[in-house]
Amino acid sequence: MGLQDAIVKPHERLSAALTGEMDEVNTLIRARMASKHAPRIPEVTAHLVEAGGKRLRPMLTLAAAKMCGYTGPYHVHLAATVEFIHTATLLHDDVVDESGQRRGRPTANLLWDNKSSVLVGDYLFARSFQLMVETGNMRVLDILANAAATIAEGEVLQLTAAQDLATDESIYLQVVRGKTAALFSAAMEVGGVIADQPADQVQALFDYGDALGVSFQIVDDLLDYGGDASATGKNVGDDFRERKLTLPVIKAVAKADAQERAFWSRTIEKGQQNDGDLETALALLAKHGAMDATRQDALDWAEKAKAALRRLPDSDIRQMLLDLADYVVARVS
Amino acid sequence: MGLQDAIVKPHERLSAALTGEMDEVNTLIRARMASKHAPRIPEVTAHLVEAGGKRLRPMLTLAAAKMCGYTGPYHVHLAATVEFIHTATLLHDDVVDESGQRRGRPTANLLWDNKSSVLVGDYLFARSFQLMVETGNMRVLDILANAAATIAEGEVLQLTAAQDLATDESIYLQVVRGKTAALFSAAMEVGGVIADQPADQVQALFDYGDALGVSFQIVDDLLDYGGDASATGKNVGDDFRERKLTLPVIKAVAKADAQERAFWSRTIEKGQQNDGDLETALALLAKHGAMDATRQDALDWAEKAKAALRRLPDSDIRQMLLDLADYVVARVS
Repeated sequence: MGLQDAIVKPHERLSAALTGEMDEVNTLIRARMASKHAPRIPEVTAHLVEAGGKRLRPMLTLAAAKMCGYTGPYHVHLAATVEFIHTATLLHDDVVDESGQRRGRPTANLLWDNKSSVLVGDYLFARSFQLMVETGNMRVLDILANAAATIAEGEVLQLTAAQDLATDESIYLQVVRGKTAALFSAAMEVGGVIADQPADQVQALFDYGDALGVSFQIVDDLLDYGGDASATGKNVGDDFRERKLTLPVIKAVAKADAQERAFWSRTIEKGQQNDGDLETALALLAKHGAMDATRQDALDWAEKAKAALRRLPDSDIRQMLLDLADYVVARVS
Repeated sequence: MGLQDAIVKPHERLSAALTGEMDEVNTLIRARMASKHAPRIPEVTAHLVEAGGKRLRPMLTLAAAKMCGYTGPYHVHLAATVEFIHTATLLHDDVVDESGQRRGRPTANLLWDNKSSVLVGDYLFARSFQLMVETGNMRVLDILANAAATIAEGEVLQLTAAQDLATDESIYLQVVRGKTAALFSAAMEVGGVIADQPADQVQALFDYGDALGVSFQIVDDLLDYGGDASATGKNVGDDFRERKLTLPVIKAVAKADAQERAFWSRTIEKGQQNDGDLETALALLAKHGAMDATRQDALDWAEKAKAALRRLPDSDIRQMLLDLADYVVARVS
């Protein structure tokens, strides 16, 4: 998530431009995450949805709606919907598999958290559907229901693809579209749909969100092999240690000789890692230009995002969203 | 689930009366649980949603719609929606806590299944929302979104209430309404709403489903302390060993003296169980008449279910649903 530091300036400008609406979103989120019957729910979600979070996804919805001249009130519901879906997926991502015990907490605690994470995530999903139903707009319901299915499908695909060297760039892209880009694109799209925009304008909003989301995730994966821990909050090599087959590795595997392939198979597929393996992995990424090629992909997706947005009329908000795409990739360019 | 044997006759008659519609539901379920991108999804769900399951909940939707003269096509979508929600909650219930290792499978396998269960459950939830959106009926969307929130809230409440001797019958009822009755009542209600019935008729359908669901769960909890393992598929005392504070125990705790209270606190709250404790628990349940009182509650709820249904015009389907309520409690009366 350290990537978000890189976009702080356009994010802050967007936040300032949307301050009244964001206050309404935060109020709605707090009201809807409460539970009279189950006080554990706000306990579990508080640290995830407390005011002061970046709120990137709901801001996209508010920005899209404002750019399209919508004056309300349902952009607020949709923005809160998007944030609830995001928070629910974060909670479900927290469900540990064995490699997740890296955090060193006691197993009993991990498992208790597990059950809470699943059920509170379900509650937030249900709350998100209630919020979107309140808009009374069938098209946004359709978009968000489809996005939810795409997200879950991408997460399941990642389960099987993450540690399989046969995973190629097209599968990686499917996973990324699911786990990250689907919610970015839906967040933008519903902002245009609620404002009753024509199909080509709505498509441009979707395309911006899609490309921004892909770029965002590629940058995240890239920083994992070359970021600054103090800035990113992650340590170099976390994805390697967790045996995640991300884009830099996919590119290096594609160019690997037999010996290198055996290395990736042992460390990623079989998970047999020894001291020095991360250094070897970094050397192989450098040898095959995998970091540079991944960086170029991120830049290309950011350009696609900006090109999509330029199909819409110019405005202050549009400029901030263009700048946002640049900021997403600023840390790796 | 052994309880379902008790209702096999009215269930079979309902199934025969709704055979064409049930075939359509099964076809729709198979089509929608497929995933082009993630073949793991049908692998995980196959044993849960394969044709031949009891399909009690979707049958309630079909029965309600038919009783109200609805001729289609959206009762099929709604029935499949209800089954997907049910299957998703089963998958998420499977997420193990430590006591869940009773099945004796290796931990790695349990944990791998964990992650799959969560994400495939999410996929089915999303699919269920897509299906309900296709009906284009805002009222059913509202009902089912609310049901999903009530289910999740009940499950979270159960997490905190299950091992706390302060849990009383009203909290138990809240949990049961969430984890079981909310989907029964919603399944009935949407059948009436899609058929555009007046409010009092829809309320009668809801009340039947609610009372049937509560009765169903109380019987399940009762059989756990007195059922026939060969018929129920559960062993006597599973809930005791898993430290679940169900209605028979709640009734016995309410009448416990200090020494008995210490016993329940040790075995349920603290989970310190020794040989002979189950026999002691059974003796305490008998001593305070907790089994009989619980049985009477189940019968009362079945009567409530039938009384609600009698507010609707007589028909063959209505009679089968009346019989269904009797069958739910037949095993314990």
